[in-house]
Amino acid sequence: MESKRILIVGGVAGGASAAARARRLSEDAEIVVFERGPHVSFANCGLPYFVGQEIPEKEDLLLETPESLKARFNLDVRVNTEVVAIHRESQELKVRNPDGQVSCEHYDALVLSTGAAPLKPPIPGIDRPGHFTLRNVPDAERISTWIDERNSEKAVVVGGGYIGLEMAEQLQRRGLRVTIVEALPQVMNVIDPEMASPLHAELDRRGISVHLSDGVSGFEAPAKGKQAAASVVVLKSGARLPADIVVIGIGVKPDVGLARDAGLEMGLLGGIRVDAGMKTSDPHIWSVGDAVEVRNAVTGLWSLIPLAGPANRQGRIAADNIFGRDSRYEGTWGTAILRLFDLAVGTTGASEKLLKQYDIPYEAIHLHPQSHAGYFPGASPIALKVLFDPGNGKLLGAQAVGQDGVDKRIDVLATAMQAGMSIEDLGELELAYAPPFGAAKDPVNLAGMMGQNILNGDVTVAQWSDVAGLDPQESFLLDVRQPGEWEKGHIPGATHIPLPELRARMHELPEDREIVVSCQSGQQAYYACRILSQHGFRCQNLTGAYLTWKNGTDKA
Amino acid sequence: MESKRILIVGGVAGGASAAARARRLSEDAEIVVFERGPHVSFANCGLPYFVGQEIPEKEDLLLETPESLKARFNLDVRVNTEVVAIHRESQELKVRNPDGQVSCEHYDALVLSTGAAPLKPPIPGIDRPGHFTLRNVPDAERISTWIDERNSEKAVVVGGGYIGLEMAEQLQRRGLRVTIVEALPQVMNVIDPEMASPLHAELDRRGISVHLSDGVSGFEAPAKGKQAAASVVVLKSGARLPADIVVIGIGVKPDVGLARDAGLEMGLLGGIRVDAGMKTSDPHIWSVGDAVEVRNAVTGLWSLIPLAGPANRQGRIAADNIFGRDSRYEGTWGTAILRLFDLAVGTTGASEKLLKQYDIPYEAIHLHPQSHAGYFPGASPIALKVLFDPGNGKLLGAQAVGQDGVDKRIDVLATAMQAGMSIEDLGELELAYAPPFGAAKDPVNLAGMMGQNILNGDVTVAQWSDVAGLDPQESFLLDVRQPGEWEKGHIPGATHIPLPELRARMHELPEDREIVVSCQSGQQAYYACRILSQHGFRCQNLTGAYLTWKNGTDKA
Repeated sequence: MESKRILIVGGVAGGASAAARARRLSEDAEIVVFERGPHVSFANCGLPYFVGQEIPEKEDLLLETPESLKARFNLDVRVNTEVVAIHRESQELKVRNPDGQVSCEHYDALVLSTGAAPLKPPIPGIDRPGHFTLRNVPDAERISTWIDERNSEKAVVVGGGYIGLEMAEQLQRRGLRVTIVEALPQVMNVIDPEMASPLHAELDRRGISVHLSDGVSGFEAPAKGKQAAASVVVLKSGARLPADIVVIGIGVKPDVGLARDAGLEMGLLGGIRVDAGMKTSDPHIWSVGDAVEVRNAVTGLWSLIPLAGPANRQGRIAADNIFGRDSRYEGTWGTAILRLFDLAVGTTGASEKLLKQYDIPYEAIHLHPQSHAGYFPGASPIALKVLFDPGNGKLLGAQAVGQDGVDKRIDVLATAMQAGMSIEDLGELELAYAPPFGAAKDPVNLAGMMGQNILNGDVTVAQWSDVAGLDPQESFLLDVRQPGEWEKGHIPGATHIPLPELRARMHELPEDREIVVSCQSGQQAYYACRILSQHGFRCQNLTGAYLTWKNGTDKA
Repeated sequence: MESKRILIVGGVAGGASAAARARRLSEDAEIVVFERGPHVSFANCGLPYFVGQEIPEKEDLLLETPESLKARFNLDVRVNTEVVAIHRESQELKVRNPDGQVSCEHYDALVLSTGAAPLKPPIPGIDRPGHFTLRNVPDAERISTWIDERNSEKAVVVGGGYIGLEMAEQLQRRGLRVTIVEALPQVMNVIDPEMASPLHAELDRRGISVHLSDGVSGFEAPAKGKQAAASVVVLKSGARLPADIVVIGIGVKPDVGLARDAGLEMGLLGGIRVDAGMKTSDPHIWSVGDAVEVRNAVTGLWSLIPLAGPANRQGRIAADNIFGRDSRYEGTWGTAILRLFDLAVGTTGASEKLLKQYDIPYEAIHLHPQSHAGYFPGASPIALKVLFDPGNGKLLGAQAVGQDGVDKRIDVLATAMQAGMSIEDLGELELAYAPPFGAAKDPVNLAGMMGQNILNGDVTVAQWSDVAGLDPQESFLLDVRQPGEWEKGHIPGATHIPLPELRARMHELPEDREIVVSCQSGQQAYYACRILSQHGFRCQNLTGAYLTWKNGTDKA
């Protein structure tokens, strides 16, 4: 037991964590890490920022070297070494060494941390020169070299997910004119459309053009004489985008060739199937990170959720289990964040569209609080959405977008959700308040109080997406903002009665219709609802009010 | 029931919250707010920043006016109106109106939100002109006027708590030379000494001189001819500090004259006694905010914890209970934060000294992670301390100090603690990671993993405060840092073996003594402990290592 030979395939994130943890649990074990590329334990998530030179040095990305891992952890790290097969019966790996020789390596325990590879669908011309995906440091260097050597001016980024948006920002930082092509109607598909809308606005403001709902039909050779050009990107709409460089970031798929060839059980989504101890269908083989399927902690369903934090924890858990410890991985919540120029957008748990897809009952609330006390300089609004179970209030998900304080609120909401808190509990959370940092009622508290009001039956809410379908025979749309706000823009068909006049002008409202009350962000409308419902009106609070409705209906 | 008359004494924070909530629950109630001062619902916590002109306009502080509260909430707000007595049998208040007339006001329900008043101990000369406390907008205006009219140059701030530190910062911002006098050996006594140490360094770096462990024995008249001067502040040490202005911020005491005179039950600490529904010993009187004693949520003991967030929530809860709703206030966690120039310092739950005082068993861990991924520009260290129950791992408290990301970690830890999470749960939290915001292993995760290691028995820890008392016959202090770190400073008496050399030089260590292992921040020492304990050595990880030891032993 003590002198195990542990082999680890893949030396980044989960693999590196498993190796280091294994050593801490056993000084005697022989631990060998095989890494196909030239680097171990590099900062995967930093790659776009290295391309954009926000991270100036390649060395910054190299968190460890084979030498440092040898010195501290007594690990045998072999880079430029590819594992080509797993022989399960003999518990051996077939390994192609840097010199080209093939050798066999016995294991008592094997950890597969083979990660995920960028998707490259069979679009005509996708493999043209000047086309890149981004998975590792050499990829990032190749992109940099191409830009430098060709003086690239125009970039097309295919895909508006995390990598696509980060690369768009960083390529512009490097001086290129950037166009994003996204087949879906929004960027960052993990969040709901009304929450993605501010990202479209930010991209527009920054001069990055975005083609939404438009896929690539092909990549053509550029006109002769255009030395710098890589391709003309032809879209399904017919648009033709000349590109000096093309970055393809449309997602990743688990890199499971080894596991599949070895006959390990796979999930329906193409990831390796593991148990809560990260063990595969083979009792001597564990697998961690982007290569495995995980339980979505909200839906309970197998999912592919490639994230660095979970990969690192899974590596630790796999090592624990190899040494007989009962550590368990309980599922992935999908907590993630992206910086896009001045904005941050974060998410945790399920989105509304995911809950809809799986028929999971939910209530959604929207709010637009300030990042810190409004009376203190520098406050900026956060668009915050929280999803919860309408029965017991249990948190199901949250999304936020804004210039400041987004990461904090997402982390607090992620923690509350993972602790099993209800939306009502958020109202009672005692968070840190001083004017530069928060408010006596933090945005998270406000969300909780809104939830309390809904679950107590003090108010019911309507959604921005309900507005277009309101039947004027059944519903009456009321806006209670101040005149100045109303004049800057309002929902078509709304009637305007400022809140201070409402008590005196209630007779102007129809008693036989549902009053849907809006304002700027939803709070004044809630006050109005409380007044109206106590006077016998049926009413609904348009959650998030004008700001959310506008985000939901704005066309990019 | 529906046409209650609700009187509220005090129109700030808890009182304003109670009034607004009461209106949302009842359109019919008559709700009257009596405020002794000229303003309701002002931004209490913003007062120092108005003095320092970081908040430029007085109007910024006035969140509501009687007019705005009338318009939106139909509240009858009477400023400059003092309640002078409560007649409980007749359910009446005796009120002195702005015109000097005294009237009687009947109540069905009464809410006392009388707050807390600055402490002014009977030190000779404390009431000299040019001496100020800071409780409300007129106080802030008086300070500003004094400074402007006298061209004040030198300020002495008595007290190094929240108000004292904020005022010191803001008075310097306004151009004054500032000295802080604090009777205790540290500023910000709610946190532990090794966590306050970075504040002393920051004050020093900013040119604010601080007299610690030195109280004021008296305030004397300045020498003749010094037109601007207010006082000479004479300290117990004999030091004499000339001051053009003196700000006294040594704490507050509940303002309970009305309640006491009315015979309401009081706590031993001088606050009003209330039940979980914020009701006093009189069934028609509720009380909220800084005037009441609350249960400390960690110790379960009655405490005075004046904070804006709890005051606001208590106001809401009192209103709920007035209308028969069973809302409960479960206790105060003491979550708080302070900005001091470039630093933020935050706390939640109990400090180590509080746990010691009440003989509550605890374990303490220290760490010094980066605010976000170290490879991304702009990361800065956070000193983080987490306290937990050594039996079941339950979180008891946390403190953090650093330039960035302190508020986020305190809020996450506060949420986890309030949710009843254990230190081990923190290791599994899935938080939002992108290089500008966090790390694949967030500081909170790292604290959790350290806790797991301790509770699993993989490592035991020593505290910085143990070092001075180590017996060389029993203990051996080992430092495993890189030579460059060691040369910049180390704990006297330590032996230096860099971690990479440890496996080869283990024979240099004594087998009959406990090895206390240190490094820079504690992580390398943990690795060393794992190596050593597997080779049969008894060892302890000096938690927080050199950085925490240095903070704990630095003299201000």
